[in-house]
Amino acid sequence: MNNFDFKNPTKIIFGKDTIKNLENEIPKDAKVLLLYGGGSIKKNGIYEQVKSALAKVDVVEFGGIPANPEYAVLLEALAIIKKENITYLLAVGGGSVIDGTKFLASAALYEGETPWDILSQHIRTEKGMPFGTVLTLPATGSEMNSGAVITRAETKEKLAMGGPGLFPEFSILDPQVIASIPKRQLANGLADAFTHVLEQYMTYPVEALLQDRFAESILQTLIEVAPKVLKDPTDYKASANFMWSCTMALNGLIQKGVPTDWAVHAMGHELTALFGIDHARTLAIITASHYTYNFETKKEKLAQYGERVWQITEGTLEEKAHAAIVKTEAFFKGLDIDTKLSDYTDDYEGTAEEIAKRFTNRGWVALGEHQSLSPDKVQEIVKMAY
Amino acid sequence: MNNFDFKNPTKIIFGKDTIKNLENEIPKDAKVLLLYGGGSIKKNGIYEQVKSALAKVDVVEFGGIPANPEYAVLLEALAIIKKENITYLLAVGGGSVIDGTKFLASAALYEGETPWDILSQHIRTEKGMPFGTVLTLPATGSEMNSGAVITRAETKEKLAMGGPGLFPEFSILDPQVIASIPKRQLANGLADAFTHVLEQYMTYPVEALLQDRFAESILQTLIEVAPKVLKDPTDYKASANFMWSCTMALNGLIQKGVPTDWAVHAMGHELTALFGIDHARTLAIITASHYTYNFETKKEKLAQYGERVWQITEGTLEEKAHAAIVKTEAFFKGLDIDTKLSDYTDDYEGTAEEIAKRFTNRGWVALGEHQSLSPDKVQEIVKMAY
Repeated sequence: MNNFDFKNPTKIIFGKDTIKNLENEIPKDAKVLLLYGGGSIKKNGIYEQVKSALAKVDVVEFGGIPANPEYAVLLEALAIIKKENITYLLAVGGGSVIDGTKFLASAALYEGETPWDILSQHIRTEKGMPFGTVLTLPATGSEMNSGAVITRAETKEKLAMGGPGLFPEFSILDPQVIASIPKRQLANGLADAFTHVLEQYMTYPVEALLQDRFAESILQTLIEVAPKVLKDPTDYKASANFMWSCTMALNGLIQKGVPTDWAVHAMGHELTALFGIDHARTLAIITASHYTYNFETKKEKLAQYGERVWQITEGTLEEKAHAAIVKTEAFFKGLDIDTKLSDYTDDYEGTAEEIAKRFTNRGWVALGEHQSLSPDKVQEIVKMAY
Repeated sequence: MNNFDFKNPTKIIFGKDTIKNLENEIPKDAKVLLLYGGGSIKKNGIYEQVKSALAKVDVVEFGGIPANPEYAVLLEALAIIKKENITYLLAVGGGSVIDGTKFLASAALYEGETPWDILSQHIRTEKGMPFGTVLTLPATGSEMNSGAVITRAETKEKLAMGGPGLFPEFSILDPQVIASIPKRQLANGLADAFTHVLEQYMTYPVEALLQDRFAESILQTLIEVAPKVLKDPTDYKASANFMWSCTMALNGLIQKGVPTDWAVHAMGHELTALFGIDHARTLAIITASHYTYNFETKKEKLAQYGERVWQITEGTLEEKAHAAIVKTEAFFKGLDIDTKLSDYTDDYEGTAEEIAKRFTNRGWVALGEHQSLSPDKVQEIVKMAY
């Protein structure tokens, strides 16, 4: 096991009819900016529940934060924060709204030239404006971590930020919100959380026995509940397990003391940037090729995963590892998620070269848990994913 | 899954040679009371490491906190805190030293008549004096939770306290400390952590799939590392997994959203009070009898545990459940821990009646996850454990 630090101060309020607890979490004298996305919360009753819980607090609203939260839109919200002397932010939405809110929490207190610095200069946020979240879409884990990814259309950039000042003070997770989520987004959430776990697990063994088993526990639970959630999102028991698994998949716990990969995300992000493919689907496109290409360095963990998560008991270590990759691809397909780039676009020729060039231009010498994936190798992996 | 709140702000600093990080965690202007136990830290080098890391801070010392931290001794430390204007507490020890420090953290800011109120009147500590810990004995999980148990010899009482103000600000977990722990205490730590998990797991199913799997993960890991740790406590890999498992066993995570039992602890505490038997060993005495007595209400979880943790695949649900109890008793025996009261004392006659009487006198109407174990049932369980 590697050395690690772990601290996660976010308060989770989980369960049925918990949105009303908002009332107890936000300071009475706060001036709140309520942030949300495309307005689905006004159709599914969440908006009313939130407003009712905030009845005694001074609230300004800002809707319209898009998927892949856009810098230009967030600057409009930042202007409101300053103009209205906002003291507390409340994100009501999925990962995009929460990530956008984290950017605002940081930018609101940032004293440098332009808030873009925070992203371009990788400025760690030690202290942000306090904020809470009401999660409406389980997937990214942003509700219990301190990271965010922000997009800037103008320059076609998608950059990460974070720091200990960006943990939500609280996050309310009411699994009943899942009942009104479209099937496509549920499938994306399942695939996203599943891949989050894989990125922190599918590396090489370091005898972190408990972390491995926790990671396998989340994978097993997602596999168990996926068909139930997709079949009937009003199945509260399945939805609750889905929601808690997504949070635990990326709240920092399972990555402590172990090597992590994250190359699938790095490559996937480019497919979103180039083709607008849903984030989770880009992960499903890259995963099998990545594991096949890096088979030799990942085969011990692939075989362990095959045995423990997919009950593959027959064959050599290599055979189990290969079978585990097949199972993973089948899992994505079972979510009705295609796993090849050509399933999404006919215009895929040259994509691998383009992504390798982008990585080279950014000075990304190497990805993955061994820091061994140079842009030429990335090119080969993406080509395998055509 | 039941509704739950979860928040745990303790920072964990885990790994080899991490005690020196103390320097960065305690405010430079703090006046620190360094608390420890019987002095073993002066023999194994931990004391020197701590003192060296605290070189730049004003430190007063208080040693001699006994196992089952004693109120009278803690009052002496409290007098020093007040006299010396202490602002920060540092516990260097196992669960007893940390629990004692939690009492002091609360008592130092308590403004009522006598600090015993905190225990006798169940006063929740919302704010305590800040404190950190350097863990020297993995077992209780006190390093990452907000609870404590304090003993008062004068009145033969052993009472619990807690509250959100009693999470350590940080805890340093260097698995190398395990190398110098006597085998008896290692066995106790393994049994204690194992039972902590069982108390939060061996109840009835509520479809909390992830919590169940996390609990099973900790049990599996303890079973895997126990023989290695006992054989060679300098085995860093095994010790690291042992240490992290003990912390995760009682940091609040696995109990969220599920029913919990804790009747084994309630009965076990009395055996410590009456006979001075080590805490962990009292749990091993009670466990099998408790599960056998409550077989009907616990059999689903017992069978699940048997299947997943002990790979019991043959037989009916009842047969698997019974076999799981046998395996649990064998696990304790494998740690060289006896599982019957008569293994520890010849003077056990009347113990069951005495414990039932104590519970009745305290007004404890019912224990366990169903709140159904009245003192007469407790009497039967303890008798089965003779």
